[in-house]
Amino acid sequence: MASHTEQDPDALVTSPDPIHPANHISSLCRKFYDLGWVTGTGGGVSIRKDDLVYLAPSGVQKEMMQPEDMFVMDYQTKQYIRKPPAYKPSACTPLFLAAYTHRGAGCCIHTHSQWAVLVTLICESLPNPAERNVFAIREIEQIKGISRGSSNPSSSTSEIAEGGRKVGNLGYFDTLRIPIIENTAHEEDLEERMAEAMREWPECAAVLVRRHGVYVWGRDVGQAKTQAESLDYLFQLGVRMHGMGLKWT
Amino acid sequence: MASHTEQDPDALVTSPDPIHPANHISSLCRKFYDLGWVTGTGGGVSIRKDDLVYLAPSGVQKEMMQPEDMFVMDYQTKQYIRKPPAYKPSACTPLFLAAYTHRGAGCCIHTHSQWAVLVTLICESLPNPAERNVFAIREIEQIKGISRGSSNPSSSTSEIAEGGRKVGNLGYFDTLRIPIIENTAHEEDLEERMAEAMREWPECAAVLVRRHGVYVWGRDVGQAKTQAESLDYLFQLGVRMHGMGLKWT
Amino acid sequence: MASHTEQDPDALVTSPDPIHPANHISSLCRKFYDLGWVTGTGGGVSIRKDDLVYLAPSGVQKEMMQPEDMFVMDYQTKQYIRKPPAYKPSACTPLFLAAYTHRGAGCCIHTHSQWAVLVTLICESLPNPAERNVFAIREIEQIKGISRGSSNPSSSTSEIAEGGRKVGNLGYFDTLRIPIIENTAHEEDLEERMAEAMREWPECAAVLVRRHGVYVWGRDVGQAKTQAESLDYLFQLGVRMHGMGLKWT
Amino acid sequence: MASHTEQDPDALVTSPDPIHPANHISSLCRKFYDLGWVTGTGGGVSIRKDDLVYLAPSGVQKEMMQPEDMFVMDYQTKQYIRKPPAYKPSACTPLFLAAYTHRGAGCCIHTHSQWAVLVTLICESLPNPAERNVFAIREIEQIKGISRGSSNPSSSTSEIAEGGRKVGNLGYFDTLRIPIIENTAHEEDLEERMAEAMREWPECAAVLVRRHGVYVWGRDVGQAKTQAESLDYLFQLGVRMHGMGLKWT
Repeated sequence: MASHTEQDPDALVTSPDPIHPANHISSLCRKFYDLGWVTGTGGGVSIRKDDLVYLAPSGVQKEMMQPEDMFVMDYQTKQYIRKPPAYKPSACTPLFLAAYTHRGAGCCIHTHSQWAVLVTLICESLPNPAERNVFAIREIEQIKGISRGSSNPSSSTSEIAEGGRKVGNLGYFDTLRIPIIENTAHEEDLEERMAEAMREWPECAAVLVRRHGVYVWGRDVGQAKTQAESLDYLFQLGVRMHGMGLKWT
Repeated sequence: MASHTEQDPDALVTSPDPIHPANHISSLCRKFYDLGWVTGTGGGVSIRKDDLVYLAPSGVQKEMMQPEDMFVMDYQTKQYIRKPPAYKPSACTPLFLAAYTHRGAGCCIHTHSQWAVLVTLICESLPNPAERNVFAIREIEQIKGISRGSSNPSSSTSEIAEGGRKVGNLGYFDTLRIPIIENTAHEEDLEERMAEAMREWPECAAVLVRRHGVYVWGRDVGQAKTQAESLDYLFQLGVRMHGMGLKWT
Repeated sequence: MASHTEQDPDALVTSPDPIHPANHISSLCRKFYDLGWVTGTGGGVSIRKDDLVYLAPSGVQKEMMQPEDMFVMDYQTKQYIRKPPAYKPSACTPLFLAAYTHRGAGCCIHTHSQWAVLVTLICESLPNPAERNVFAIREIEQIKGISRGSSNPSSSTSEIAEGGRKVGNLGYFDTLRIPIIENTAHEEDLEERMAEAMREWPECAAVLVRRHGVYVWGRDVGQAKTQAESLDYLFQLGVRMHGMGLKWT
Repeated sequence: MASHTEQDPDALVTSPDPIHPANHISSLCRKFYDLGWVTGTGGGVSIRKDDLVYLAPSGVQKEMMQPEDMFVMDYQTKQYIRKPPAYKPSACTPLFLAAYTHRGAGCCIHTHSQWAVLVTLICESLPNPAERNVFAIREIEQIKGISRGSSNPSSSTSEIAEGGRKVGNLGYFDTLRIPIIENTAHEEDLEERMAEAMREWPECAAVLVRRHGVYVWGRDVGQAKTQAESLDYLFQLGVRMHGMGLKWT
């Protein structure tokens, strides 16, 4: 079998299939721009397909992203096997890789959504230090859009039970918890904190970064996007509830 | 006359007509996604045409919905006569059927709109228990977009009077009332509460579900969509009025 | 010259020209739907071209409006010379005619924008009765998008002066004033109040209707749309300023 | 070499290239309309390409802008070499020229975004006079979308250091500062204040105009648009933070 390095790198991003990763990232970037998640070239999207990782480049206007703009990395060697000469790799790359390595994800979405940022600011302002590093909300139907991971202990409404474990998505009476890590001067330096949060919160479907945004992943694009949308909905609702003096839990 | 079960099930969802139910549900899902009503695969749409009920499946990204994704049920027997193998039926199905059975509806729309959820949260927080289970608003022009049902006693401005009954839509000086039911762990368990609310509020055009969203119906797609939009407008206006300390009634 | 009544009525709404009134109203309705001005079939648009008045029908979903849906009225006789059999004329018709008759307008736009409604609710809640029936704002650049009419006495920054009169648009230091009239049970009954407000406020470019929306006009579609957008911007900004405790004047 | 005045002026705005300035301004205007930056014909866009300056005209609906609507000016002589007969030049022209002359910009964007206006109103209302004439914010990731100019003294996280100077974009721990100048009755009279602000704030990437909007520039369209989007994001976040009682710095 031919190694990736022997083939034409541009073939890696050329396909008529709209869900080929290079095309899919481009169309997702346009959607996320319309949602206000990647304004001013912020945020990013990556897809892992088998042993190839596709990454949108740094500094490109997201709504104008094209398949030929993509970086492609060999997941085993972590070497780029396609680098568009005009661009730099995204500073989010180590964070996306953390989701693939530590969670077996197939897609990772990073947004600068203001609702994510505001939720981290609200938590930061809470009097109780125990509440500052996690966004927690319960008894909102949209929570059911988020995977429970594998071992959420508070669950009482699992959709499917296998060998006693709770699997599937969170139930209405479960508490959704998303850890918040502190931002760093350089995005690539977030990697260690992100990995630590993933170890500490083995069921979490996302990590919030204070005053920055959120990283959300999933086993494939569909799950990652559904979770990113559901979380953004919950962050926005949470901000509005807070403004009205209503509790999240 | 051939029974539905004898024909090719795929023929039930194949039509060049943009308002064939399978096509219409797909285009409505795209519109509702843009309105923020069905984010993260939440919410749903169903159309009843004669004795066929068309239902969008569970867990599909609404803005990508295709006619071939639809479930089709025989309304008389409640048996599916078309099931796309890749999908599960929507958990909203019994709720949609309640609107067809108890109200003779031709279309039912379920949204997770944040304005609907916030209105239920505001009501929940009111000091007067009598105000907690109904959203009521009056003297807003958009109320005229909502049907009065058949027996609204407070009406003084009926558009049409037949045999002494008030028919047509609510008037400007009428009070719009939408009951609020409590959410359940599993959407299908809402069925009984929904049916009870429909019996208790025989004129209501919709039922709000606390911390979840709203179910709106109509005799056809046009009326259901007009009422869903008008209600969402009133929920949003209601939230803003509440934030400014203004009364709804 | 052939009278309108002798020609094929459908020819009145059939043209390949995108700014033919029947086409133009349809495309404006789609834009206004996206702006949230005509949700739930609310609001409306009319264009007067020479002695023909084009009117969108009642109860049609605005984003689906088609040229063949239009009513056409002879402005001199006030008789419909084209009536689509499936529809009823808009209840806004007498209000649109008031703008043509009393102001010589060429286009009139009616929105149910929540910002217009909220501005009327804020004014209604003010302690000073003198402030309840007019929305007034000054020293906001967007005010310059609104015509001064012909005799704004407070103006000190006229763009053009002819014979001592101030003409053109309002200046930055002018005060924009839009009268607010009370709503009625039936939209057609607003006609008298609207005409009275137009006489009392001879320079106003629009009339707000309490708890209902706004009517905006202009000499042509371009001016009416520019004024409708500028006013909606000012209503929205006004609501946000009010929420922050900032004065409008 | 032929001077511009000898060639067909319409050739200056005719090109199949989507990033030819006449086409690019048109597509940017459509985007900015959707972002709410240029509602009611407000705001504007200009591109400088070599010694040609392209300018959108005054009073045209931005989402309908066409390449043939553009004014073209010779940057050396400041003479128009193409003037569409139906239009007047934009009153923003001297402000755009200030960005080209004093900052060597290649593109300048002027928006009436409500978030920009609200930020200037919030600053105006602050008790400390020193805070009234500058919008300052720090420790928000999106700040990294803004150029540091050439001499930001507070910087501690420069992306690139050349000869001891900080270059590239602002870092997360830098403070972004955008000066605010007072509005004038006529837009062209802002020129002197704008030039003064540019001299006083040699690193700033934009100038806010009180109760009016913002002027943002960049070395090319990509940088100007990225900065305009990042600033609008920060203005909006700043307004929301202020509403929640959170400090910007």
